[in-house]
Amino acid sequence: MMKAAYLKEKMNIIIRDDRPLPEPDDSQVLIKMEFCGVCGSDVHFYREGKVGDTPAPKDFILGHEAAGTIIKAGKNVSGLNPGDRVALEPGYTCGKCEFCKTGRYNLCPDVQFFAAPPVSGALQEYVVHPADMCFKLPDNVSTEEGALVEPLAVGMHAAAQAGVTLGSSVLILGGGCIGLVTLLAAKARGASNIVVVDLFQKRLDMAKEMGATAVINAESEDVAARVKEVFGDLGADIVFETAGAISTIQQTPYYVKPGGTVCLVGMAAESMVNYNFNQIMMKEVTIKSVFRYRNLYPAAIAAIASGAVNVEQIVTHRFKFEDSDLAFHTAVVHAKDEIKEVIEF
Amino acid sequence: MMKAAYLKEKMNIIIRDDRPLPEPDDSQVLIKMEFCGVCGSDVHFYREGKVGDTPAPKDFILGHEAAGTIIKAGKNVSGLNPGDRVALEPGYTCGKCEFCKTGRYNLCPDVQFFAAPPVSGALQEYVVHPADMCFKLPDNVSTEEGALVEPLAVGMHAAAQAGVTLGSSVLILGGGCIGLVTLLAAKARGASNIVVVDLFQKRLDMAKEMGATAVINAESEDVAARVKEVFGDLGADIVFETAGAISTIQQTPYYVKPGGTVCLVGMAAESMVNYNFNQIMMKEVTIKSVFRYRNLYPAAIAAIASGAVNVEQIVTHRFKFEDSDLAFHTAVVHAKDEIKEVIEF
Amino acid sequence: MMKAAYLKEKMNIIIRDDRPLPEPDDSQVLIKMEFCGVCGSDVHFYREGKVGDTPAPKDFILGHEAAGTIIKAGKNVSGLNPGDRVALEPGYTCGKCEFCKTGRYNLCPDVQFFAAPPVSGALQEYVVHPADMCFKLPDNVSTEEGALVEPLAVGMHAAAQAGVTLGSSVLILGGGCIGLVTLLAAKARGASNIVVVDLFQKRLDMAKEMGATAVINAESEDVAARVKEVFGDLGADIVFETAGAISTIQQTPYYVKPGGTVCLVGMAAESMVNYNFNQIMMKEVTIKSVFRYRNLYPAAIAAIASGAVNVEQIVTHRFKFEDSDLAFHTAVVHAKDEIKEVIEF
Amino acid sequence: MMKAAYLKEKMNIIIRDDRPLPEPDDSQVLIKMEFCGVCGSDVHFYREGKVGDTPAPKDFILGHEAAGTIIKAGKNVSGLNPGDRVALEPGYTCGKCEFCKTGRYNLCPDVQFFAAPPVSGALQEYVVHPADMCFKLPDNVSTEEGALVEPLAVGMHAAAQAGVTLGSSVLILGGGCIGLVTLLAAKARGASNIVVVDLFQKRLDMAKEMGATAVINAESEDVAARVKEVFGDLGADIVFETAGAISTIQQTPYYVKPGGTVCLVGMAAESMVNYNFNQIMMKEVTIKSVFRYRNLYPAAIAAIASGAVNVEQIVTHRFKFEDSDLAFHTAVVHAKDEIKEVIEF
Repeated sequence: MMKAAYLKEKMNIIIRDDRPLPEPDDSQVLIKMEFCGVCGSDVHFYREGKVGDTPAPKDFILGHEAAGTIIKAGKNVSGLNPGDRVALEPGYTCGKCEFCKTGRYNLCPDVQFFAAPPVSGALQEYVVHPADMCFKLPDNVSTEEGALVEPLAVGMHAAAQAGVTLGSSVLILGGGCIGLVTLLAAKARGASNIVVVDLFQKRLDMAKEMGATAVINAESEDVAARVKEVFGDLGADIVFETAGAISTIQQTPYYVKPGGTVCLVGMAAESMVNYNFNQIMMKEVTIKSVFRYRNLYPAAIAAIASGAVNVEQIVTHRFKFEDSDLAFHTAVVHAKDEIKEVIEF
Repeated sequence: MMKAAYLKEKMNIIIRDDRPLPEPDDSQVLIKMEFCGVCGSDVHFYREGKVGDTPAPKDFILGHEAAGTIIKAGKNVSGLNPGDRVALEPGYTCGKCEFCKTGRYNLCPDVQFFAAPPVSGALQEYVVHPADMCFKLPDNVSTEEGALVEPLAVGMHAAAQAGVTLGSSVLILGGGCIGLVTLLAAKARGASNIVVVDLFQKRLDMAKEMGATAVINAESEDVAARVKEVFGDLGADIVFETAGAISTIQQTPYYVKPGGTVCLVGMAAESMVNYNFNQIMMKEVTIKSVFRYRNLYPAAIAAIASGAVNVEQIVTHRFKFEDSDLAFHTAVVHAKDEIKEVIEF
Repeated sequence: MMKAAYLKEKMNIIIRDDRPLPEPDDSQVLIKMEFCGVCGSDVHFYREGKVGDTPAPKDFILGHEAAGTIIKAGKNVSGLNPGDRVALEPGYTCGKCEFCKTGRYNLCPDVQFFAAPPVSGALQEYVVHPADMCFKLPDNVSTEEGALVEPLAVGMHAAAQAGVTLGSSVLILGGGCIGLVTLLAAKARGASNIVVVDLFQKRLDMAKEMGATAVINAESEDVAARVKEVFGDLGADIVFETAGAISTIQQTPYYVKPGGTVCLVGMAAESMVNYNFNQIMMKEVTIKSVFRYRNLYPAAIAAIASGAVNVEQIVTHRFKFEDSDLAFHTAVVHAKDEIKEVIEF
Repeated sequence: MMKAAYLKEKMNIIIRDDRPLPEPDDSQVLIKMEFCGVCGSDVHFYREGKVGDTPAPKDFILGHEAAGTIIKAGKNVSGLNPGDRVALEPGYTCGKCEFCKTGRYNLCPDVQFFAAPPVSGALQEYVVHPADMCFKLPDNVSTEEGALVEPLAVGMHAAAQAGVTLGSSVLILGGGCIGLVTLLAAKARGASNIVVVDLFQKRLDMAKEMGATAVINAESEDVAARVKEVFGDLGADIVFETAGAISTIQQTPYYVKPGGTVCLVGMAAESMVNYNFNQIMMKEVTIKSVFRYRNLYPAAIAAIASGAVNVEQIVTHRFKFEDSDLAFHTAVVHAKDEIKEVIEF
């Protein structure tokens, strides 16, 4: 038996030592979990007992930002050995549909994803995982950083979808976790002018430290005026919406440059948004969207290892596995001051 | 003096023989106009005396789908000679801004465009035009086809922006002129399944003749059900919106396949559209938009010459220059039954 | 027991009724073979008993351009049923390496490919194949056309790699099977000027019938002069090398337009080619290469079904399964007059 | 009258105060030159009196890496004023050909380029230049850095052509000026593993300081073994050839990963190279080439201003305008120890 963290009910996670140790099949590895980040979707389940219309199953196990050490490898596994520290890419897919075959496996309709019901998450002492979804960490990347590869991959996918490149000017609406990983990725791809907008000063301070060339506090400043001041009349090459708020989605057509790109990363609670498509069309803007990520774990690990990205900067709180409930509680009650909680086993 | 067609007031074009013959400068050519198509934006000026907030100037000259024969060439012109039949690309741009230099001259803020106030249009017996915006027609392309290069270029730009390729499945919302040229371009790029939706049966009949694999009459059929029947549960690779109606823009997220592309071609009268961005994001859809076209005249002429595109199919009515008013009148009153009027000089 | 066609020795294929009927596993289907094309690589094995340094194993079975009817489906197979006619994509890959995951599975180092030793080919009465590599044929695509999807996919991959699009000008060096399927794909993508060069008039006649705008007989004409005549001083947007001859590879830098693309499709017998890279660099040309194909069976079938491609035009000879030896013999001795042999079961 | 540096004969530049001050036309600016870098092509003219088959005209003026301060602006110039410090993009093009219109103006056949005969170079006290080819330097970019934008743009174009992105593994053959600016650009785009190979240790030391993750001395080390050690059996995602040597061009097919890109940046003295195209084709490699650059001055200046690129690291020697001959002499005789000479006015 091993310990796992169960969501008993809204706002209540308990640890119990009652879960059978899993056994890897031939193509899987058994991993001793060492770090697991807390993601916004996890927090939704914790706070409301559901995400959108999807209720958390009874005794649901959360967590999908995972890293640990391999204990045992299935007999068909090559390239990974017991003792290897790995980051776990949480979604495993069918490998046979048109989306998988064309490399866009994040769109696979049969994906199984940690902590997406009915699949259990990673807040357990041991997990089994397909070997090809486990990525070995080099010596100069910590296991905690391994757990942070997951959110970083979202930012890197956003930056890739939007085509950020050396010299790009970038506006990021929203300075929460996704805003900040997008900032890290944009910076690492060479964006030369990166502005972050948020309501919370703590986030803006962090953005500044992480390389934003300017920040705008939407509570106290005139965002439109500041955007014009920084980017000129034409606007930014690329505008990321990472806040998932209707009001920020609505701002995107006005701040983007003709011929530029709006990239939607944050999912809004309501599906319908009243949007100025005439602006989009007059400017011949492209709108890209982001659903998770694909094929980015190796690049993300390489980027951390090379120093191109310092992803640990996003961690604001650290907890022990035994204090998992407190970790989630913190995410709920200190929203203004937190970005990322990491749980250590 | 030469004749020109003046918009005297709403719904009234008169021909007067009172306009001085223009003289080409060193880099221009003088062209005897032979054919000019009537475009939707021209019709707006004719019907309402304005487009959006832009009123037609006094004695405005309409027309920007133009072709004719060169009479005289400026001294720096090479490659074009008197007697050459040419299609006239109507917008000439600064050549020096970042948009021009990066090949996206359709976004040049200083563009001068036939029949976009204050620039006069092509419904005059003679026009001067920059030589590099005049494209010689080969023997097997008629001068009338030369005039139709302009709308075809819009369809070709739409198909290029959306990335239509061999084997693509394509849904086109709207079967007016822009819908049909998009159909022609999509077909010529190898799309294998092209469905056109419209309210007017005449347009659908034309679409069928021009190569649509199926058509849907939105008046009498259940569009969603038919789309599902033709494209399956996942939807179409590419959805073009060419009707410029809020309701059709709103349908695009539901009909496009995960990972697919929505391409907005028709500009709606109102700028704000209540739009389901959650659908877009869950499917990681790309939204492309289209503002005129760029660098497509040579390819369009080549496509007509090779037989890949038969653009004359879009012409429903032909008029003499003297009957210009009737041409526009027809476009206004026979909207259900017309696609393209061409005026011959 | 079932019949299979065995390569006994160079230039000798025999049919024997001694092979055990295979049984599909849970994710496979059992297929009654109906048509199998003869490919150049098969002919190499037949004529020389080897391809490059790879000898044919004892009693080797050739054939990888295969189509037939499903007899039985494994229990995990969905979407395919007994009675369905299918085209078989011959290479199945690991699904787990970086090439597979990024959609470039043709580069998978662990590919298993029909008739690539030690994997047997399709010249047997029944074969088992992974269900996700079997593509259902619609009613208006014949099973013979299903077998021709394989060579067509090579041409489509070449055209896609080279970026052929509506209005492209294209030069194809070599009018054998690969040259002709490249022609078909280029035409279907909208290329407006397609010229084929070969030494054999029969091939050029076929190219002309299949839509080439011009052909050049390299035996009797001055190729460089004709290329200049057709494409002008600047050359062709795209030059395909499909002959796999050193001399034609060497010509590519001279015939391609500045900023254009050379696409290498034919593999030469010798690896080293003395090549004018200065020409390539002065013109800033891109060189693309082609190794098999990927993700193209659905598009190829759709293209045949829509009429965009008429692939049966490449078939010059048809044989019964019992006459397999004759089919290969014909390919060897009538090289000047044959393009594609198809064997019917 | 003003001073200019004239190439009297091979290996002899003299300064004379005999050149008429130029006058800007309406769309030009008059610039007081402040810094001019010495480029390899300049050095060719100096050392041999010619580049390839092109002899230097009598009293030729060299120099095309130029920056200075605007003294006077033509009456149609907007956005630039006397006193503005600017970097001068040296090539001005027709703006009307298909290459210019599609944004690939570096391929314009009518380009006029500083110090490409018969056009004089920038080693004069004052030059006139088209305003749209002068790019204002922000306060935190020095005028010397402005002169270095030119070589940096070559590296940035190479990195863009090759598609270097966050996490890419990159091998650079050649650690001269072009190798090092390619390194800077690759690093700034997020490449995580960048290895530079050269024969000269000084260059490798500089590469190391500028961010190479490893360097290989081709004189003393086994390059193939080291490449394998660093990149693994599969090779590097991208291999740049910047040495312009036949032997390094020939190595590219062996060091690049399947599906990867070879990017040719250095022009070899001889045009013909015996090259292993079978390797290229088996790996489905893309070969890109680089001719100058396009549309990169704004991005390069932004990259310097943001700190993404520290281009001054490439300067090894600085001279006064009066010592221009010594600057060139140094470039010739100290080839092993020099990268970039900058001349200050």
